[in-house]
Amino acid sequence: MNKYTLAVTVDNRPGVLTRIASLFRRRGYNIDSLSVGTTHDSSVSRMTIVVDGDRNVVEQLTKQLYKLVEVIKVVEVDAAESVQRELALIKIKAEPGDRADIAQMVNVFRARVVDISKNTLIVEVTGNARKIDAIQEALAPFGILEMVRTGRVAIQRGGK
Amino acid sequence: MNKYTLAVTVDNRPGVLTRIASLFRRRGYNIDSLSVGTTHDSSVSRMTIVVDGDRNVVEQLTKQLYKLVEVIKVVEVDAAESVQRELALIKIKAEPGDRADIAQMVNVFRARVVDISKNTLIVEVTGNARKIDAIQEALAPFGILEMVRTGRVAIQRGGK
Repeated sequence: MNKYTLAVTVDNRPGVLTRIASLFRRRGYNIDSLSVGTTHDSSVSRMTIVVDGDRNVVEQLTKQLYKLVEVIKVVEVDAAESVQRELALIKIKAEPGDRADIAQMVNVFRARVVDISKNTLIVEVTGNARKIDAIQEALAPFGILEMVRTGRVAIQRGGK
Repeated sequence: MNKYTLAVTVDNRPGVLTRIASLFRRRGYNIDSLSVGTTHDSSVSRMTIVVDGDRNVVEQLTKQLYKLVEVIKVVEVDAAESVQRELALIKIKAEPGDRADIAQMVNVFRARVVDISKNTLIVEVTGNARKIDAIQEALAPFGILEMVRTGRVAIQRGGK
């Protein structure tokens, strides 16, 4: 099984997310990640869907999506020719003696500290899934208290 | 109508996203943004749901969510006491004469250029919804070719 990324442009009408989610349920697609947001045109939303499967699954899913009236365009995004990003917020324990080590780790990953309390830090990091996994692993020894990740978003590179 | 942010922790089973989306559809909740991702515990996913409504809507939705067996915890995240972030990728036209102006704008917003082609740039930016709106407006005069935004993620500040 491979992971495929689809960029789906939809009319921004109430209920469109639930119609698409209901399509996934009926057809039993295995959705790895889903992210929904507005675009520069407020009448249009864009979903990035990461699905597990093979080429056949991707073709079927694309065909089914086009049957929904709200769906404007479905584009398969090739990993090598696109920028793919997730964002994560990670709250970790930060005892005074650990702060220098944590700061160094944060720099290595080009992450940012976005909140500090007496015994905790919140780190914001962006990158592809592999980078987020790597910083999570690097910070784990300090003690991860809470973590939240967006789904993946993707955009084709260059002038295409 | 106000916007409320809910952090929903769920068992990472197949079909959980579609069960929750189907709850939204049946009950007619107005979902502004939805983001789903894994946490540091791979058996658990976390959804951040931004819903339009009033206190009553939030209480009803919380109650309905708890009826789903996959739902572990529902927390209302207060804007003032949390870090709230979205990520956007914005592809803009970048004629050689505009690049210096664009670079300056990117610095002001602490954004990053993540792809360059002959006539285009892709900018990555994180922030709250207002910041993303602001950079979008600032870059619009150069020509936005494509834009994708994640849903919102949120985490409580401090040691709570």
